[in-house]
Amino acid sequence: MSKQQGTQEDRLYRIRHSAAHVMAQAVRELYPDARLAIGPPIQDGFYYDFDLGMEKGRPRTFLPEDLEEIERRIRRIIGGQHPFVYREVNADEARVLFADEPYKLELIEGLVEGTVDEYGEETEGSQVISTYTQDTFEDLCRGPHVEHTGQIPIEGVKLMSVAGAYWRGDEHRPMLQRIYGTAWANGKQLKRHLKMLEEARQRDHRKLGRELSLFVFDEEVGPGLPLWLPNGEVIINELEQLAREMETAAGYRHVRTPHLTKESLFQRSGHLPYYADSMYPPMEMEGVRYYIKPMNCPMHHKIYGSEPRSYRDLPLRLAEYGTCYRYEKSGELMGLMRVRSMQMNDAHIYCSEEQFAAEFMGVIDLYLHYFRLFGIEQYQMRLSTHHPKGLGKKYVDNARLWARTEDLVRRTMQEGEVPYVEVADEAAFYGPKIDVQVWSAIGREFTLATNQVDFAVPTRFDLVFVNSDGVEETPLCIHRAPLSTHERMIGFLTEHYGGNFPLWLAPEQVRIVPITDDHVVSAEAFQAACEARGLRAGVDASSARMNAKIRQAQLLRIPVMAVIGDREVADDTVSLRLRSGQRRQGMPRAACLARATDLVAERSADLTELLAA
Amino acid sequence: MSKQQGTQEDRLYRIRHSAAHVMAQAVRELYPDARLAIGPPIQDGFYYDFDLGMEKGRPRTFLPEDLEEIERRIRRIIGGQHPFVYREVNADEARVLFADEPYKLELIEGLVEGTVDEYGEETEGSQVISTYTQDTFEDLCRGPHVEHTGQIPIEGVKLMSVAGAYWRGDEHRPMLQRIYGTAWANGKQLKRHLKMLEEARQRDHRKLGRELSLFVFDEEVGPGLPLWLPNGEVIINELEQLAREMETAAGYRHVRTPHLTKESLFQRSGHLPYYADSMYPPMEMEGVRYYIKPMNCPMHHKIYGSEPRSYRDLPLRLAEYGTCYRYEKSGELMGLMRVRSMQMNDAHIYCSEEQFAAEFMGVIDLYLHYFRLFGIEQYQMRLSTHHPKGLGKKYVDNARLWARTEDLVRRTMQEGEVPYVEVADEAAFYGPKIDVQVWSAIGREFTLATNQVDFAVPTRFDLVFVNSDGVEETPLCIHRAPLSTHERMIGFLTEHYGGNFPLWLAPEQVRIVPITDDHVVSAEAFQAACEARGLRAGVDASSARMNAKIRQAQLLRIPVMAVIGDREVADDTVSLRLRSGQRRQGMPRAACLARATDLVAERSADLTELLAA
Repeated sequence: MSKQQGTQEDRLYRIRHSAAHVMAQAVRELYPDARLAIGPPIQDGFYYDFDLGMEKGRPRTFLPEDLEEIERRIRRIIGGQHPFVYREVNADEARVLFADEPYKLELIEGLVEGTVDEYGEETEGSQVISTYTQDTFEDLCRGPHVEHTGQIPIEGVKLMSVAGAYWRGDEHRPMLQRIYGTAWANGKQLKRHLKMLEEARQRDHRKLGRELSLFVFDEEVGPGLPLWLPNGEVIINELEQLAREMETAAGYRHVRTPHLTKESLFQRSGHLPYYADSMYPPMEMEGVRYYIKPMNCPMHHKIYGSEPRSYRDLPLRLAEYGTCYRYEKSGELMGLMRVRSMQMNDAHIYCSEEQFAAEFMGVIDLYLHYFRLFGIEQYQMRLSTHHPKGLGKKYVDNARLWARTEDLVRRTMQEGEVPYVEVADEAAFYGPKIDVQVWSAIGREFTLATNQVDFAVPTRFDLVFVNSDGVEETPLCIHRAPLSTHERMIGFLTEHYGGNFPLWLAPEQVRIVPITDDHVVSAEAFQAACEARGLRAGVDASSARMNAKIRQAQLLRIPVMAVIGDREVADDTVSLRLRSGQRRQGMPRAACLARATDLVAERSADLTELLAA
Repeated sequence: MSKQQGTQEDRLYRIRHSAAHVMAQAVRELYPDARLAIGPPIQDGFYYDFDLGMEKGRPRTFLPEDLEEIERRIRRIIGGQHPFVYREVNADEARVLFADEPYKLELIEGLVEGTVDEYGEETEGSQVISTYTQDTFEDLCRGPHVEHTGQIPIEGVKLMSVAGAYWRGDEHRPMLQRIYGTAWANGKQLKRHLKMLEEARQRDHRKLGRELSLFVFDEEVGPGLPLWLPNGEVIINELEQLAREMETAAGYRHVRTPHLTKESLFQRSGHLPYYADSMYPPMEMEGVRYYIKPMNCPMHHKIYGSEPRSYRDLPLRLAEYGTCYRYEKSGELMGLMRVRSMQMNDAHIYCSEEQFAAEFMGVIDLYLHYFRLFGIEQYQMRLSTHHPKGLGKKYVDNARLWARTEDLVRRTMQEGEVPYVEVADEAAFYGPKIDVQVWSAIGREFTLATNQVDFAVPTRFDLVFVNSDGVEETPLCIHRAPLSTHERMIGFLTEHYGGNFPLWLAPEQVRIVPITDDHVVSAEAFQAACEARGLRAGVDASSARMNAKIRQAQLLRIPVMAVIGDREVADDTVSLRLRSGQRRQGMPRAACLARATDLVAERSADLTELLAA
């Protein structure tokens, strides 16, 4: 969760911010010894961090019943309709006001030095020190808030959970208790949000991953290292076929490169100075240090450089579903979304400056094609640019090239009418990048793919091409990964579809249900016919009753069930039943097979076509 | 090269062995200070190791002109028709006879102790000490030899090369000079052999890999870590499609697993105690040591163990083209044949003992299918068994299970009438293995694939299934990799085909040759039609003359050239020209496309079908 951005005026922002203050007041009244840290509004709500002191050698925590009591107290404060009152104070006044609040005092010193804001976030220039007071409670704050507590809708606020959080995110500082709340303009909105959360819980890819046998983690293999089970591998394979097809048609050529290399390669690429924290430690052999790769680019640069290139060879588009390894703290790993091993739909496009716009738009077109295919209706491109203060630290030190490349990207996006937002200081170290945010069918946000422009690294690798005048030039390089990594993409798709994968992606496409043992032979014949067409089909030959077999297939989200009884055997038909419950009796087998094969070939999302007469 | 086995009676063996002695005599006569080490017959010839002393601080070496002079001297000795005379000596006599030969003295001590034979190879029991003398030269030797030097065919012997070799293969012992010679029954055989060597040189996968842009090695990436270029990746992809198709039809399910895991997994699997020397060093993160995997098996065992299994789930066949990493000394790396990173056509079949024979024969059938597909006519299965002296060291310490499993494999091979030879003391640590040797089209031998039976590791992983009586049993595990690794298989196929890959494997299948610029548009239309059919086609739109374009396509071993001139544009035809030189004028384009697509789909090796009327 990140602090909500750029919506200071937004009513919800004020409600959430004010709710955080009210919650802090409630906690202060119920726990007079509690020390207050920070409490910002966030997406969907707010939180506040408290230090409750120690109990039996451990930080004291809130219990579920504590939250109920705090919630009751919040309602009472809201009912008081207390105005929020702003005032500015000087440093000494502030230090007196918060003399008993060590965390606030630390924040005040940051404000005085002008290095951090009141949430402890880095900032620049000296800060005005201000507070807001409601009722008996005054907090260090620059607002904004609603006018009085009565404007916080009682029916729209709910405390959600408690979690431990280190002060300033630093594991060497005290562990605080963070209460998360959600706040909305009214009870209806809150209800919708809670329903969405429940739906999201049902669709959680970790839960569905287990239920549908897509992947497992194993303690003995290690955290963040998924093992893909046969069902998950089917989806991986389908995505790879899709990518290969699209990329081949778009003029990419595929390569394959090792997972580890000498240290010197990553020094040359700049990963070691700029990216070492995210890399695994080295292995030393015969006096040389080797690293497993956090990115595929240096390898592709080596392939570009493996023979002389002329302008006739450009654009050169090298693609590889390459596996990369990044070090993440085990505490930060999360399902398939944050892992230590990821197989990326990677490619690098080497082109001249004149070719850039067409290549860049070609990549954007590929993204849009995939969005349409997966039914992703809401998405946003975020252009991340550099910040001058990071030159030579986070960013390659060449202000002129940064300006030129960022301008090139902006112009291309504008001319191509691609909607985007721009964010400063989040670029890659070698150039501006475009993150693609997508929203799943139930409105959960995911950062899927990135698209980066690299004006720096080709030079480090001495990559050149001879232009039409016979002069050597350095190519630009576009890094792109529209299908993200298998891990993240399949995590997203699982939640997006709620496990109801379209036919072409479904691990088992057809579950054949013989009504009794007498129909098993016919069922197996139909299975063989499916498999001969390349369809993935299974027969449930167990002794369970038909309804139980269908329930089981539905639990596994198998898109098509083909029931076979006496009549179907006699007529050479199947009775179809879709995952959705729609049915068709007595469909001729040949027609069913032909139509299913077509739907798979078209990667259709619409199963009902299968039932059409 | 290994010493020739089991052919003591063979005439060529005697000729080669005798030629080694004659060469030693020749060197001794020309270099009286040379000290003699060992000189065995080997495949195709013989060698002898000499110590020529030091020169300017380095071991003195033979020059090419020295070999010529030695060869002249050999001819003279052969011409002398000197008989080979055998005698036995006791240890003291031997020590006096070879008083000036320190290497021979060391060998004599080994013979006396009964630990090594006269070539320094490990052996058991006390040895008779014997010598053979021809002309003025007496050598420590147990024979056999020809009757007299005149039986060595002068026209059949040739010295080939000189290489450095450590005494007893130990880099801490002196570097000796090894002269390799080849020897045959007559001049015609020698000529044929030299022609085969030249052909092998032309087909060397390292040479063709460069010429056909299949792969490169890069100093900065590291030795033994190939980068697959687009042309090589096409072959990889075709092999993977082939494997997937065959494996899916044979009831395998595919999985995908990480390239690294915690140390504890490899301890459990037994790799760390038994296989650590071939593994990369560990990486330590958060106090835990991780290893990149030298084999895929432990991961597949984890997948087997990720849910309860019953006899109904068996056989469970888990397949993965998994990349493994093995440490090899950089001096021992060789092209694609000995690498540090390899992607293996791996699978593990978990089955009950009753299912073993059928599963094992299923694997053998898969091998035979691939051999037919690739036109591999000569092959041999080598069954490697354990040796009791290695129990608890190289081999899992369970004599009873070794006996039972080896017997099971032997019986299955015999009942299935699979021809095989048996070799003791070369098993895997967890069970007997079957190595598959194949010979390329020009008769070069390659060890491709292995097939292993594992009775030990499933227990270590607590793998069980509930049998039909409801009782837990441990499954057997068959490890198999019929297509070997991409590296070794593609290295082999490159040499086997001499770069003339069959249509389905060829990186570029059709090279379209417009005769002049006027025909480029029509050529590009035909290219698009090829690509729409999934054929890999390129257009040579350069300004070169037609013959130069065809020569270029032939150098690249492109199977089919489609020439397009005025007539072909007018008639909507192409004039075909195969890599072999065969041609057909004015073939209708639609028929050409249809036939080419069929040949690819059938993975046909016969291109001439394309030309049939």
